[in-house]
Amino acid sequence: MRKAAIIGATGYGGAELVRILHQHPHVSIHSVHASTLHGEPLVKSFPHMQELINHRLEAVNVEKISQEADIIFTATPSGVARDLVPGFLKNGTKVIDLSGDFRITNQEIYEQWYGIKAADQALLNQAVYGLTEWIDMDVTETNFISNPGCFPTAVLLGLAPLVKQQKIDGGSIIIDAKTGVSGSGKGLSQVTHFSGTNDNFKIYKVNQHQHTPEIEQGLKKWHPHVGPVTFSTHLAPMTRGIMATMYMTATEKTATEDLIELYQSVYENDPFIRIHSNGSFPTTKDVSGSNFCDIGVTYDERTNRIMVISVIDNLIKGASGQAVQNMNKMLGIDEKTGIDFMPVFP
Amino acid sequence: MRKAAIIGATGYGGAELVRILHQHPHVSIHSVHASTLHGEPLVKSFPHMQELINHRLEAVNVEKISQEADIIFTATPSGVARDLVPGFLKNGTKVIDLSGDFRITNQEIYEQWYGIKAADQALLNQAVYGLTEWIDMDVTETNFISNPGCFPTAVLLGLAPLVKQQKIDGGSIIIDAKTGVSGSGKGLSQVTHFSGTNDNFKIYKVNQHQHTPEIEQGLKKWHPHVGPVTFSTHLAPMTRGIMATMYMTATEKTATEDLIELYQSVYENDPFIRIHSNGSFPTTKDVSGSNFCDIGVTYDERTNRIMVISVIDNLIKGASGQAVQNMNKMLGIDEKTGIDFMPVFP
Amino acid sequence: MRKAAIIGATGYGGAELVRILHQHPHVSIHSVHASTLHGEPLVKSFPHMQELINHRLEAVNVEKISQEADIIFTATPSGVARDLVPGFLKNGTKVIDLSGDFRITNQEIYEQWYGIKAADQALLNQAVYGLTEWIDMDVTETNFISNPGCFPTAVLLGLAPLVKQQKIDGGSIIIDAKTGVSGSGKGLSQVTHFSGTNDNFKIYKVNQHQHTPEIEQGLKKWHPHVGPVTFSTHLAPMTRGIMATMYMTATEKTATEDLIELYQSVYENDPFIRIHSNGSFPTTKDVSGSNFCDIGVTYDERTNRIMVISVIDNLIKGASGQAVQNMNKMLGIDEKTGIDFMPVFP
Amino acid sequence: MRKAAIIGATGYGGAELVRILHQHPHVSIHSVHASTLHGEPLVKSFPHMQELINHRLEAVNVEKISQEADIIFTATPSGVARDLVPGFLKNGTKVIDLSGDFRITNQEIYEQWYGIKAADQALLNQAVYGLTEWIDMDVTETNFISNPGCFPTAVLLGLAPLVKQQKIDGGSIIIDAKTGVSGSGKGLSQVTHFSGTNDNFKIYKVNQHQHTPEIEQGLKKWHPHVGPVTFSTHLAPMTRGIMATMYMTATEKTATEDLIELYQSVYENDPFIRIHSNGSFPTTKDVSGSNFCDIGVTYDERTNRIMVISVIDNLIKGASGQAVQNMNKMLGIDEKTGIDFMPVFP
Repeated sequence: MRKAAIIGATGYGGAELVRILHQHPHVSIHSVHASTLHGEPLVKSFPHMQELINHRLEAVNVEKISQEADIIFTATPSGVARDLVPGFLKNGTKVIDLSGDFRITNQEIYEQWYGIKAADQALLNQAVYGLTEWIDMDVTETNFISNPGCFPTAVLLGLAPLVKQQKIDGGSIIIDAKTGVSGSGKGLSQVTHFSGTNDNFKIYKVNQHQHTPEIEQGLKKWHPHVGPVTFSTHLAPMTRGIMATMYMTATEKTATEDLIELYQSVYENDPFIRIHSNGSFPTTKDVSGSNFCDIGVTYDERTNRIMVISVIDNLIKGASGQAVQNMNKMLGIDEKTGIDFMPVFP
Repeated sequence: MRKAAIIGATGYGGAELVRILHQHPHVSIHSVHASTLHGEPLVKSFPHMQELINHRLEAVNVEKISQEADIIFTATPSGVARDLVPGFLKNGTKVIDLSGDFRITNQEIYEQWYGIKAADQALLNQAVYGLTEWIDMDVTETNFISNPGCFPTAVLLGLAPLVKQQKIDGGSIIIDAKTGVSGSGKGLSQVTHFSGTNDNFKIYKVNQHQHTPEIEQGLKKWHPHVGPVTFSTHLAPMTRGIMATMYMTATEKTATEDLIELYQSVYENDPFIRIHSNGSFPTTKDVSGSNFCDIGVTYDERTNRIMVISVIDNLIKGASGQAVQNMNKMLGIDEKTGIDFMPVFP
Repeated sequence: MRKAAIIGATGYGGAELVRILHQHPHVSIHSVHASTLHGEPLVKSFPHMQELINHRLEAVNVEKISQEADIIFTATPSGVARDLVPGFLKNGTKVIDLSGDFRITNQEIYEQWYGIKAADQALLNQAVYGLTEWIDMDVTETNFISNPGCFPTAVLLGLAPLVKQQKIDGGSIIIDAKTGVSGSGKGLSQVTHFSGTNDNFKIYKVNQHQHTPEIEQGLKKWHPHVGPVTFSTHLAPMTRGIMATMYMTATEKTATEDLIELYQSVYENDPFIRIHSNGSFPTTKDVSGSNFCDIGVTYDERTNRIMVISVIDNLIKGASGQAVQNMNKMLGIDEKTGIDFMPVFP
Repeated sequence: MRKAAIIGATGYGGAELVRILHQHPHVSIHSVHASTLHGEPLVKSFPHMQELINHRLEAVNVEKISQEADIIFTATPSGVARDLVPGFLKNGTKVIDLSGDFRITNQEIYEQWYGIKAADQALLNQAVYGLTEWIDMDVTETNFISNPGCFPTAVLLGLAPLVKQQKIDGGSIIIDAKTGVSGSGKGLSQVTHFSGTNDNFKIYKVNQHQHTPEIEQGLKKWHPHVGPVTFSTHLAPMTRGIMATMYMTATEKTATEDLIELYQSVYENDPFIRIHSNGSFPTTKDVSGSNFCDIGVTYDERTNRIMVISVIDNLIKGASGQAVQNMNKMLGIDEKTGIDFMPVFP
């Protein structure tokens, strides 16, 4: 068994890592860390783990963790991993960062959208962007993966075939994204207050969401003439799930059946991507509690537009599930290991 | 007191008419009608009306109703009002139809999108499209108003200033709409089943929603070079509320402040339209339980796109509230009468 | 028009007072007060009030308020009204307190359950307990009403006929209450965090809820041999509404029909109490958005137990609606004035 | 691999069986059956199973199924298994019935509460009541288990220690149960309609729930002087989860700590029962998506009453999870096999 340390175990991303790794056949949880509550059992924060997880929260001791753990997950607020990761890497330990600190390679763009200081350029260059299905290297050879954001995961998996094949006008991309409230984390705010959120639908961070440059960076890697994109985010009164509804102008007349074939062929070896048949579209519950990304695509002759609907569970494929998928690949084991569970419905 | 008859009183639209008219100072409920349950008290279908409404459901007797009532509301499934309204009008009674039967003036387009036979062309020509804020005639002189659909109400009120002023490229309009489940009515279906809908986000009728031609017809009246539009509809796990998020390319560089001023000036005499200030956007709960349409608008320099966010309560401004607003105007009384209640929050 | 001042206008109780009084024909809102945000428009806290309420939040100046206002509502956290009310009363202004500060007449019991210092005994004796339907004096002659808690309102209205008529064993009362999350107020806590609350059902303050002594005090006034009661409170994943399911042993064999007749007769002149017929029971939505209390009652021969199901909207009949009902009676006007609106369904 | 057949695969119970068995290491899904949709892929009913389950729905051929399958699950409406099971058993195949057809041993009582004809008495006598933790025989020696109802599972697991140890007055038991809407199944009805259920709290089948005699039968087996019980059921606006709040008079003064010790000792070898510490109580989300039953217990000196709060996921421990737990024991393998997953939170 390899040993994993989880930094930021009291957040939702950390809790899902604990849940997934608890059932992983080849990796065990070595230690859990947070910035507060040291010495307290993790189950006090998460009663659903009672009798299953006995770990107590520890402070972050970089030397100790890097020596004891085989792999470290950082599921921390913006700016924390930026300062911790160099120490872990120096000791040769594998790191997967679930925060946004290493996703944007360009420091200036990072600082403009995140409003805080970027990580060192050398480190940014070293980080492998972990959109698992589209990593173009042998990740057993890297020690450092930057796990994608939840929205960029849904968006990039949904757009890859069209952008790479230049099926769409690169300037025409409009992404209308909806997320469940767990995407806003466990922290307290009026945004996550039940009475103001239940039975309510909201738009937030209009034209200012920090996942915008991550999406554009990913798309431009596949085709330089893409963007800028319009990316807007809405809060739906539900706990989990992201749906990205995406609108693009087709470069030439096409047919839904052809697009579906393209998607099926592109993703035929990817066990976590499921393509819907003509006229069928995924709902967020179709993937809830699982690592799947379900995609529907359609072409509208009236408007010459292509629509792509991509759904994920924001805490799994959009965070901890994809992180474990990346871990599996880094460790050279089957990418499905420990995350091949079926969605929970209803 | 004028006397109102409500046809289709067992649906949600009919129930909201009952609720609103019950508190209306100048119009009383004369009779309630449905296709079944004749003789049964309406409160048996709607226990929230207990001790307030004593009416029993009656069959539809066209002659009797037109003679006894001053105004008739038809809140019926597609195809029903088409056959009933001629009889009412022949008798000179005022009619407001809440179904879609008379919204599309072009019979061919209606039949293509609705899949059933259209109403007579003469009747279609006679029907005044009741988007209250934009009716360009004295409606005390008409006997027949076709009440707009819920989505077209939110969309058209949100787009009118931009389209009329040609601020946007008419071919660039993309409308991503979200509705609460009450929009699907009181009928039983897997779409409205709680366990499959709660905590779930769905897209439906992709590129096929029958409100699409209604939106295009409305926009083209204001500017002929608009359309086709992309209009997509999502089901959010909440009871009431519509949010339309709308994306358009600006015809020339502009500024958010200028757009807000335009909206404020266009709607300054309309008591039910509220414009948000720069950087603020409405949520569906801001208007829930009320006849308001709240609108936010913003310009994004990066993409040269304008976004408009328009929210309504689908059962009030999107149906029965607007119908009563239209009734008020037809009767020559203040349009706010009986519908000037504050939204219910939280 | 009489003039009302609202202390604690940024909470849910205060906001509902604003909403109700805004539409009241005989009382206008004079000023709104809070402990913070002075000078800020109230609509900044509550966007649903936009264009309807122009008041800015003011600090609490006891002298100024008592001189300018005809009636003062205190919707403040525990312990605040205790210190403010004496000043208001000294100036002869009418006061309705929506906090719990004056509900428990016995100082010792108050301090035991609330954990803070009780109000002066003289003031406690002066306060009229405002369970409107059961106030046994002419309230035009009092200046000071202590508005009941949300749970005690549902419970006491539901139990009054049985207790007063000694139909039940006074030691057998078990109350299983469920409330929507708005009952926990607008403050931020893990209890009201959406992701931990949505799709979740919780029990809280087990055997420790501060409404327990208020319920017992109310019941004992009607019959001294009642209590102690078991009273437990649950949080349901919904915004508004209280259901109290109450279980009691019948003192002698009875019949559901007889119980229903008793309830109908007891409440026949109370416009806000609605009794369900045999075999029918209210849901919380039946009263949502209204000042009604709906009650169902049944007798089970197998167990010789009577069950009473009582539902209210916790923010209206359980707080601000009942406060306005009390205000109406204090001012000598029809108790229904301004609060006779129909529940909002669905 | 043993082979399982699932009769009633299009309901929620059937779907959960498919999900659980799909991941079971020692049992595979052989065939899935329903009364309609023969030949159609099961994924058409349940898109979340896409690419994971390839089975098509088949009609029920008793001979064929009993010969091919090692174990048969019947998750069918009332009255169906009654007629199917004899054929399966005759062929010597193991059967676990998830319907209520074989839970009540007394035919008269069954017919009184279920309103349909009971199964043969011989068959009723043969059925082993599968409340796993309390089966008092070696189930590898039976071929036929009747799986408990969802409510009785939560209730009986919660009451067993008190009843067996005679800690409570057997005539004092009051059970106030709350369930998520999935407990009402996948069928369409006003009860499960989203708009009438969301943000609403309901009581149903008052004093008439068919799980009442099942609870009483179970309790009487442990102690003859128990009952009748008051058992009431509420519908909470959530998808999954049951909470049973139970109230009883203690036979003698006791202490919460002692009760907790009793529970811990009684259940110390039961991996799916978790006892909360003093002052802590479970929520339904603590067990959602898992086979756990979490229990909190407390004693109130004021009233001399004991309260027990017991929560389960109605579709797992309350149905399909417990069925697989029973299957494991019938097959002589570790009872945790394939169902030891952690609850999904949030």
